[in-house]
Amino acid sequence: MSPVLQAGTVYGLGLGPGDPDLMTVRADRLLRQARHVAFFRKAGRKGQARRIVEGMIPEGAIEHPMEYPVTTEIPVTDPAYNRLLAEFYEDCTAQLVALAAAGEDVVVLCEGDPFFYGSFMHLHLRLLDQVPVEVVPAITGMSAAWTATGTPITWGDDVLTVLMATLPEDDLAARIAQTDALVLMKIGRNIGKVRRALQQAGRYDQAWLVEYAAMPGQTVQRLAEAEDRVTPYFSIVVVHGHGRRP
Amino acid sequence: MSPVLQAGTVYGLGLGPGDPDLMTVRADRLLRQARHVAFFRKAGRKGQARRIVEGMIPEGAIEHPMEYPVTTEIPVTDPAYNRLLAEFYEDCTAQLVALAAAGEDVVVLCEGDPFFYGSFMHLHLRLLDQVPVEVVPAITGMSAAWTATGTPITWGDDVLTVLMATLPEDDLAARIAQTDALVLMKIGRNIGKVRRALQQAGRYDQAWLVEYAAMPGQTVQRLAEAEDRVTPYFSIVVVHGHGRRP
Repeated sequence: MSPVLQAGTVYGLGLGPGDPDLMTVRADRLLRQARHVAFFRKAGRKGQARRIVEGMIPEGAIEHPMEYPVTTEIPVTDPAYNRLLAEFYEDCTAQLVALAAAGEDVVVLCEGDPFFYGSFMHLHLRLLDQVPVEVVPAITGMSAAWTATGTPITWGDDVLTVLMATLPEDDLAARIAQTDALVLMKIGRNIGKVRRALQQAGRYDQAWLVEYAAMPGQTVQRLAEAEDRVTPYFSIVVVHGHGRRP
Repeated sequence: MSPVLQAGTVYGLGLGPGDPDLMTVRADRLLRQARHVAFFRKAGRKGQARRIVEGMIPEGAIEHPMEYPVTTEIPVTDPAYNRLLAEFYEDCTAQLVALAAAGEDVVVLCEGDPFFYGSFMHLHLRLLDQVPVEVVPAITGMSAAWTATGTPITWGDDVLTVLMATLPEDDLAARIAQTDALVLMKIGRNIGKVRRALQQAGRYDQAWLVEYAAMPGQTVQRLAEAEDRVTPYFSIVVVHGHGRRP
């Protein structure tokens, strides 16, 4: 009788905001021992997650780029977008399951924290009933952003609201008006809407724009002083809370 | 002429949620090279931050416990509470400034992420104009909590609201009713109010209670199945979002 093959584990490996020095000790160790390293990327690009770990993947490890069939070419509201992405996630899952079933551990590189607006979540959902999966949490991009401003985000009983700039303008404005501290993500081409929503809520002058937090090229400036600036998708806008401070 | 003494740096060192394996590579390195290690604790206790790094402080490093003059003996609404704490933070600051002025680097241990509802923020505010200060971000306790539930916290355009259970019940209920994903912190003796607010908002059955996330003794259970449970102050309640997922 041949021994029963033990399934490998798929690790959703949170890399944190971008500086490899801000990876966890656990993620650093798992990566440096990895035999299979998978990561998402846009076709023709190196991939941001892969870029973060440059020089850290052990010699002989096999890399598995997973290339999005579509990113911004089709609007997310188009049913074709959903179908294409679902098929893509199914394919990626099948690839990871095949590796794990062959007894191989696989590390899937995740920017930020895997369970916080992460792409890995779409694989996690599909992997769960098939193979062992472990998620290694990490520092979120928003933590890096508020750290970069040099000012704490929340004090005492402050309410923190995290909003995607993809939401409708009036919804953004209403929620911004009601919160103490604020994080706005997925800025990019939504920057005009973000400015108007902040102005409508009377918080525009308190807003900070952080680009490339904890990455090379990090910038921090008041949003009001960054007029006409073209902002990358991964920019983050922060409004600090002002709660109780003895 | 004697050489000009270069001031040391005070590091607000985020330790993350509790498992030393989830500290960042940077925090791990700074701690293992430290000559002065400061941390808050309740008088007569070891201190949670100090407990996390047990066995990691280098031999010969000097420890500087900073003991709260008051924790829950006086309500936060009492002016005496504010005055006592302000004096305490002034004293701690003076001690850290003296060390830095003598050219010594000091590591201040911070549970979770230093700029997210952290005690170090009260020192940071006072240190800023006096000595070099650096903040090392870390994984928040809430990231560890949602990771412990095994389910992502936010998808697509989900709104995340972070609330302190110290807020009034009606305020909690109104905000809970309006958010997609929810994190409730500072539970402890507020657990009854938290249950009622969640019920009022119609979200009680979706709530998870996580105790000691990423620490020994971690528990994860539906809040509704944890009736009559006495919850520690650092428990976290989580309600997951259900946004777009192809």
